[in-house]
Amino acid sequence: MAYLGPGSAGHYVKMVHNGIEYGLMQLISETYDLMKRGLGMEPHEIHAVYDRWNKEELNSYLIEITADIFLQKDDKTGKPLIDVILDEAKQKGTGEWTAWDALDLQVPTFNIDTAVMMRDMSANKNQREKAGHMLKGPSPHFEGERNPIIHQIKNALYAAMIITYSQGLALLAKASNTYQYNLNLETVARIWRGGCIIRAALLEDIRSAHKSNPDLENLLFDGHLGQAVVAREADLRSVVRIGTASGLPMPGLMMALSYFDAFRSGWLPANLIMTQRDYFGAHTYERMDEEGTFHTKWGKQ
Amino acid sequence: MAYLGPGSAGHYVKMVHNGIEYGLMQLISETYDLMKRGLGMEPHEIHAVYDRWNKEELNSYLIEITADIFLQKDDKTGKPLIDVILDEAKQKGTGEWTAWDALDLQVPTFNIDTAVMMRDMSANKNQREKAGHMLKGPSPHFEGERNPIIHQIKNALYAAMIITYSQGLALLAKASNTYQYNLNLETVARIWRGGCIIRAALLEDIRSAHKSNPDLENLLFDGHLGQAVVAREADLRSVVRIGTASGLPMPGLMMALSYFDAFRSGWLPANLIMTQRDYFGAHTYERMDEEGTFHTKWGKQ
Repeated sequence: MAYLGPGSAGHYVKMVHNGIEYGLMQLISETYDLMKRGLGMEPHEIHAVYDRWNKEELNSYLIEITADIFLQKDDKTGKPLIDVILDEAKQKGTGEWTAWDALDLQVPTFNIDTAVMMRDMSANKNQREKAGHMLKGPSPHFEGERNPIIHQIKNALYAAMIITYSQGLALLAKASNTYQYNLNLETVARIWRGGCIIRAALLEDIRSAHKSNPDLENLLFDGHLGQAVVAREADLRSVVRIGTASGLPMPGLMMALSYFDAFRSGWLPANLIMTQRDYFGAHTYERMDEEGTFHTKWGKQ
Repeated sequence: MAYLGPGSAGHYVKMVHNGIEYGLMQLISETYDLMKRGLGMEPHEIHAVYDRWNKEELNSYLIEITADIFLQKDDKTGKPLIDVILDEAKQKGTGEWTAWDALDLQVPTFNIDTAVMMRDMSANKNQREKAGHMLKGPSPHFEGERNPIIHQIKNALYAAMIITYSQGLALLAKASNTYQYNLNLETVARIWRGGCIIRAALLEDIRSAHKSNPDLENLLFDGHLGQAVVAREADLRSVVRIGTASGLPMPGLMMALSYFDAFRSGWLPANLIMTQRDYFGAHTYERMDEEGTFHTKWGKQ
């Protein structure tokens, strides 16, 4: 482990590492759901997909162990082990702490917060089972040729992973300024690349991006990584459309897409939020064409 | 104001009120974006839609003032005021505090957290403008007959609003147990119905739901409210599909749909997350068929 910076810098970097880990695990679990409930695939077939993905651009420790997991048999029943494990996710708090601090620093870490919330959602299986009987929606199984859909899912996952790392590294950049950690993000990416739970081939591109621009504000501004997402955004949209139509929850993929679309929106409808705040609470607003803060006397007040 | 409970109960209820307010305002802003960038509508046309909605099931203070806002002219330029207001949303912290406490109590308040994060996202217009030039996607304008799409947007908004209130009230229920506030949620709904920023015709249905079942764990378990969402879920899916295809960010509507689909998933892919945690950290897992915690010795360890 290299020296990262003064005070709690090392601990903070480890915390954000874990936050990113939560985000990536949520995304991988959604691709599993698309293959299991969506395409009706068996564990050994799902193993083969992750095993192939691990030999391509998605090469990473998490994909590697996921491939392994789908081969494991249960000693007691002889069934695939994955099928006997309870679907209630636990957590030890580091994802939650990352989400807290990101809210405090006002850095939108969509995929980290979403992953923490989905663990909370999963934890109450009794309520989910009850709701499953009461709240009807589409059938999760979808039709279509399997291989082209799996190819789209792979591209969607890769794009969403880049977007998740972007959020985590944007948080580190803001924290480094705010807490005067003086972090070198190239070093962080290099250390993560060397060995940790989120180690991935992608981290080499992330390291390069920070090396060629030490002041990089967001990974999506790097030519290579930004265009890697642009090249896959149509597939990410297709997968979100499939999940939407079949009623499979995919908040991680949806929030990755939302992050991408909001980030590239030079204009957002937040002007309405500012106007509502001025209307009901005289919180004032700013203008496009003039410096300062302004207040309107609203009709019915 | 009625007596709500001991200690900080009243403050807590006010905080969650504000969290719900954030969630609703984000949803409304997304419907505005769909009409403005998506359908190319002018402020006076958008006014007419919100004005009509305010006379129907969406009747509420926030929709009422939104309708008003789109009529307001700017004294300086003579243009519609909404068009000159800067699209960077500020906040005073109560949404953030709600999100924090929900994370701590492990209650998944998808729409509150998302609304807070979208304010953070909106705040950096410089980065968004730069990203808008670099990261290409679909054109936001979409084709289609205007009135049927607006009808779908109305239904999507109503369903998403019910889901947002459900999250806030589930948080209040958990907080009431944890902090021993002994809250009566029917009383809370009655007070909010009487007068506050989130007052809405819908709160009468919410009050009734808590009156007929004081132990209601989630509003979606109420027959009337749950079926009101079920009746509109196809329209919510349609609107999410339109936004996905046209590259309009709609994290609020997407997270409302994700909440609905995850909540009604008796099975979720969280078993994979538990297995990954056992693989890389020996965190153990639970089984479907037997009490206790278990650990597997994984292949490559």
